[in-house]
Amino acid sequence: MSEAFDAVEIITAKRDRNELSDLQIDWIVDAYTRGVVADEQISALLMAILLNGMNMREISRWTDAMINSGERMNWSSLGIPTVDKHSTGGVGDKITLPLAPLVAACGAAVPQLSGRGLGHTGGTLDKMESIPGWQASLSNEQMLKVLQDVGAVICAAGAGLAPADKKLYALRDVTGTVPAIPLIASSIMSKKIAEGTSALVLDVKTGSGAFMSDPEKAKELASVMVELGKRAGVNTRALVTAMDVPLGLTAGNALEVRESIEVLAGGGPADVVELTLILAREMLDAAKVSGKDPEVALKDGSAMDRWRKMVKAQGGDPDAKLPVAKENTVVTADRDGTILSMDAMKVGMAAWRLGAGRSRQGEAVQAGAGIEIHAKPGDVVSAGSPLYTLHTDTPAAFRRALESLDNSVTIGDMPVSGIDRLPLIVERIVD
Amino acid sequence: MSEAFDAVEIITAKRDRNELSDLQIDWIVDAYTRGVVADEQISALLMAILLNGMNMREISRWTDAMINSGERMNWSSLGIPTVDKHSTGGVGDKITLPLAPLVAACGAAVPQLSGRGLGHTGGTLDKMESIPGWQASLSNEQMLKVLQDVGAVICAAGAGLAPADKKLYALRDVTGTVPAIPLIASSIMSKKIAEGTSALVLDVKTGSGAFMSDPEKAKELASVMVELGKRAGVNTRALVTAMDVPLGLTAGNALEVRESIEVLAGGGPADVVELTLILAREMLDAAKVSGKDPEVALKDGSAMDRWRKMVKAQGGDPDAKLPVAKENTVVTADRDGTILSMDAMKVGMAAWRLGAGRSRQGEAVQAGAGIEIHAKPGDVVSAGSPLYTLHTDTPAAFRRALESLDNSVTIGDMPVSGIDRLPLIVERIVD
Repeated sequence: MSEAFDAVEIITAKRDRNELSDLQIDWIVDAYTRGVVADEQISALLMAILLNGMNMREISRWTDAMINSGERMNWSSLGIPTVDKHSTGGVGDKITLPLAPLVAACGAAVPQLSGRGLGHTGGTLDKMESIPGWQASLSNEQMLKVLQDVGAVICAAGAGLAPADKKLYALRDVTGTVPAIPLIASSIMSKKIAEGTSALVLDVKTGSGAFMSDPEKAKELASVMVELGKRAGVNTRALVTAMDVPLGLTAGNALEVRESIEVLAGGGPADVVELTLILAREMLDAAKVSGKDPEVALKDGSAMDRWRKMVKAQGGDPDAKLPVAKENTVVTADRDGTILSMDAMKVGMAAWRLGAGRSRQGEAVQAGAGIEIHAKPGDVVSAGSPLYTLHTDTPAAFRRALESLDNSVTIGDMPVSGIDRLPLIVERIVD
Repeated sequence: MSEAFDAVEIITAKRDRNELSDLQIDWIVDAYTRGVVADEQISALLMAILLNGMNMREISRWTDAMINSGERMNWSSLGIPTVDKHSTGGVGDKITLPLAPLVAACGAAVPQLSGRGLGHTGGTLDKMESIPGWQASLSNEQMLKVLQDVGAVICAAGAGLAPADKKLYALRDVTGTVPAIPLIASSIMSKKIAEGTSALVLDVKTGSGAFMSDPEKAKELASVMVELGKRAGVNTRALVTAMDVPLGLTAGNALEVRESIEVLAGGGPADVVELTLILAREMLDAAKVSGKDPEVALKDGSAMDRWRKMVKAQGGDPDAKLPVAKENTVVTADRDGTILSMDAMKVGMAAWRLGAGRSRQGEAVQAGAGIEIHAKPGDVVSAGSPLYTLHTDTPAAFRRALESLDNSVTIGDMPVSGIDRLPLIVERIVD
């Protein structure tokens, strides 16, 4: 039986709503990684998976096959528990930046392999790269050394980690096959399991600014990922959290670094601080570490100390002035009243159009571009008071960014029932 | 808006069960033909179309876009009505061979553009090519000349005819996206409409040996194609016909030519003669030609005369001895009784494995390979009497062909209700 014949048989099986066998999954993921099965065959299979689904056994095997396509890292030589966090991505979600050094300051090691952004949500590496001198790429040995010295590292996944996922993700991006729970879950979890962390907290975003805007779908994704983690021996839990409104008061690379540093300095927006502390406690609990209280670590400078060491360890200058965009413009309220809603997706699209994000893998992003938010839901504003400041190096981008922000905010009288928005923590999934 | 961005938008729309607009369909078919949209994007779209469907407007527009990707032929200079027949393919379906010269003998012109076989059903060109000297490829001018001189021509579609369909068909073949009614219907009808025939009769096969084994699906396909023909101004009708049992007593290229010549000589198996006459009358009626009765044309030698001229016009020698395979073996009945069923798919698979068909586009086929059938459902046999003679140039193929034929025939006592099989004509669809 030729290999190409098998590919059509596997596509056909999933097309016809049959389960794929373990051997079929192992073979096709391996054969695609080796280049034996063509992109056009896999994209047809991915669309069939998106539309017809996979059961838990198939998703778990698919994840294992992606892990087995590359190396699996191991941090047992550190001698302390490892724990990581992954967010499915949201507008203004800079939590990883204060969180990794904070958890390290409290006694667990955080081996955070991050990615770059695509579309309306930013990527952690893009944000860190706005720090002058900071380098995202580390060898495994360098990564281990930073973990030993600092207790936390944020860096790019090497080419040896889940190479099947890298190929699949690039293909999904151009074939409309990104938003499938089996494919999202296996992509995220294959990288996190291969990364070698012993515990993992997932922050699954929901609401208008999230990939999974429907809370029920977000819960389903979270449950699948928690189950995948457990099956792989990683102590995994998930929080489904609000992304109907942008997180914090900034969306954009250097702008978010600045806000993260405010949090590490004991200040920062209340929602960013609250989510950072909730996730830190969840991570420490998952890692079974009961050292310093995270709230204390933000106040006593120990988290900031880890941040500075972490930035320096990768060539960054924690004291350098962060990049500022060449141009800015202010958007103001058009009436008096209370801000009743702020659409995270519209703010994210505007930040992306200002230059903070990319449309395709490999495109450059602007470090200084993005949006500062001056008032959020619940705040009272007057006509003419500032809502947003938009930043970009390319002022031609203002027009489309302003279009994105049209109707992004509603201002009116505070209803007696209060503001209608998602709670910060929508659901907690431990088992 | 970049072109690549549009492709993802179109894939996503169909993935999410939305209708594609006329402009989206025009653009993506054209862009794929030009090579601007990648195979992996189109295969994802094809899978989404297969699983989520297209409505009649979308299918019609998709068909038009494929026609518009190339030239549209025109036979008005002939001065007599043109009519063509298309079969969706079945085991032993050699009807085109006697039918085209027969209809020409009765007064209509038959511009038959045919294809090569893939899998268990043979292709008309493969059958004709077993005639020594016969050439499938003609220029448009040569095709017109044969039509003028003979009234019927069977040849390969040129590269200029629906090039979008050629690319799409090759892609569907390797991506498990062949069996979708919108894609089958648009593929067949784009070629037949571009071919320039003014009337068309479709023979949609159903039963175990057909691509559409489910009669309801076959009727649906037939109705969609009749509607596409009408919308394009081609007087189109369809017969859904039986393919639960092989047609005639041969499956294989030269074997089927021999049987076709028997029909043209006034003999041949009853089912082949009956279907040939039914289709000839349907074609003449659709073309509004009431000349000679087809039954007379088979008896008086005028159809045979057209056949001989048609073969000669393309370099073939109608008197040459047809190729015979190097080896043969006989399969016999294992008990006394009546043949109650004969599985067309199993016979077709066996013929394919003997070398009569190909697994991939571009592979060679054996002219002499195939199966002679000595008894069919309703016939009484004795233990040891011959059921099949298998022919091949590669005797190693006998083993797998014999495996395919396992349980292909059931022999037992004739039930009082008679043999359970499909009627030759399952349905006639005119409007």
